[in-house]
Amino acid sequence: MTAVTLRVIGIGPGGPRQITLEAVDAIAETDVFLILDKGERTAELTAARRQMLDAHAAPGHAVVAVADPPRDRNPADYEAEVRRWHAARVDAIDAALVEHLPDGGNAAILVWGDPALYDSTLRITDALAARRGDLTVEVIPGVTSVSALTAAHGIVAHGIGEPMFTTTGRRLSDTPAGADLNQFVMLDSSLAFRETAAPDDLVHWGAYVGTEHQILVSGRVGDVTDEIVARRAEARERLGWIMDVYLLQKRR
Amino acid sequence: MTAVTLRVIGIGPGGPRQITLEAVDAIAETDVFLILDKGERTAELTAARRQMLDAHAAPGHAVVAVADPPRDRNPADYEAEVRRWHAARVDAIDAALVEHLPDGGNAAILVWGDPALYDSTLRITDALAARRGDLTVEVIPGVTSVSALTAAHGIVAHGIGEPMFTTTGRRLSDTPAGADLNQFVMLDSSLAFRETAAPDDLVHWGAYVGTEHQILVSGRVGDVTDEIVARRAEARERLGWIMDVYLLQKRR
Repeated sequence: MTAVTLRVIGIGPGGPRQITLEAVDAIAETDVFLILDKGERTAELTAARRQMLDAHAAPGHAVVAVADPPRDRNPADYEAEVRRWHAARVDAIDAALVEHLPDGGNAAILVWGDPALYDSTLRITDALAARRGDLTVEVIPGVTSVSALTAAHGIVAHGIGEPMFTTTGRRLSDTPAGADLNQFVMLDSSLAFRETAAPDDLVHWGAYVGTEHQILVSGRVGDVTDEIVARRAEARERLGWIMDVYLLQKRR
Repeated sequence: MTAVTLRVIGIGPGGPRQITLEAVDAIAETDVFLILDKGERTAELTAARRQMLDAHAAPGHAVVAVADPPRDRNPADYEAEVRRWHAARVDAIDAALVEHLPDGGNAAILVWGDPALYDSTLRITDALAARRGDLTVEVIPGVTSVSALTAAHGIVAHGIGEPMFTTTGRRLSDTPAGADLNQFVMLDSSLAFRETAAPDDLVHWGAYVGTEHQILVSGRVGDVTDEIVARRAEARERLGWIMDVYLLQKRR
């Protein structure tokens, strides 16, 4: 019997205390942590993840770095390239589990934020579970960067009873008419709201939310856009990477 | 000096281990907890909240139940009634702080899920901060019921790169065309998807997510709607209350 439980653990947006007790419990029960190392660009995030393991993992746990397969960031066919890249990651993780848990046990992958939101880990583990009948996947929810953003700004995400739209910078210009009252925008390295928002709309922007590096800017798009552009560029240059998110609210 | 820090602490969707370490820290630093008691209907939730205090609060803390003002659940003007009700809650909380923290200190209100999402507490504390210059409001983000739902089902919320819409049962039929690819629906006692979804759409429904009572149903709308209706009615009858949420996904 080589039953493996593979837990995908949401560890929150970045602050070491924004992890749940359930995630701490799951970390403590884990034999082998798979670290999908994305290289230099997020070396600081990898270090923060290792600090969480130092704080919560049981003695004797193993940490296995699974090298991330190379990825074309500007492919002609975006979705096809993502699928190809995911398949290569499945192969790599399968090989790591065979090597490091030959007799079964508990493995885990730590995911920033919540695993259900703009993260590819569950697609990979589902593909792996389809291959390996002895694999059980469990998911531990985490605090999202969206919740950390609104908490840091001290705001509610929407007017009373209003809906919200969550999208990416890549798709921001495709938001259907009427769905743009309150929009969370993630994965937006180009600050696409500059092309879609009106000057009187509100933007609540945050970078590195929940961490010691947190930067917040909030106000009328017409007033604060230049500041967001400048602070984003400065921080990215200084730290070598950036994770940011914003809430865009239509003028009422 | 009577400086009061009022923390609005997201404590997650219901499970006692789905609270963050940051929330545990904040609970431990709190002198006075304000419990906005909504009466019999959620007696079990109030009990779960008190269990969290027993586990994490410091010796000597006080728990003050602030009676919830009466509310018209079916008013002619929904938003006006909500505003009136919020003002009455501000009065009640202000009086409780004056009585129980006359010399300042740390107060807290515990909020299920995340305070930014379909919860009125921040509107109340903002109104209170506008009255009292000595009051500082801090927000601690929490795991949302939406994240607990997707984790329990083991699913990602959306196809690769796709956007999501989050709305209420009351407004589900108003979702703009094209925004309904992936919809989270909250506060829906009437299971409004029965009026809006096609038989081939997918629904991932959960009640009491993250708790010992958790119920999950997932499948084609045409296949599982009757089961959701029946299980929801049965659980509500048996436990005396229900909290549920679902993800609706358009057939691809």
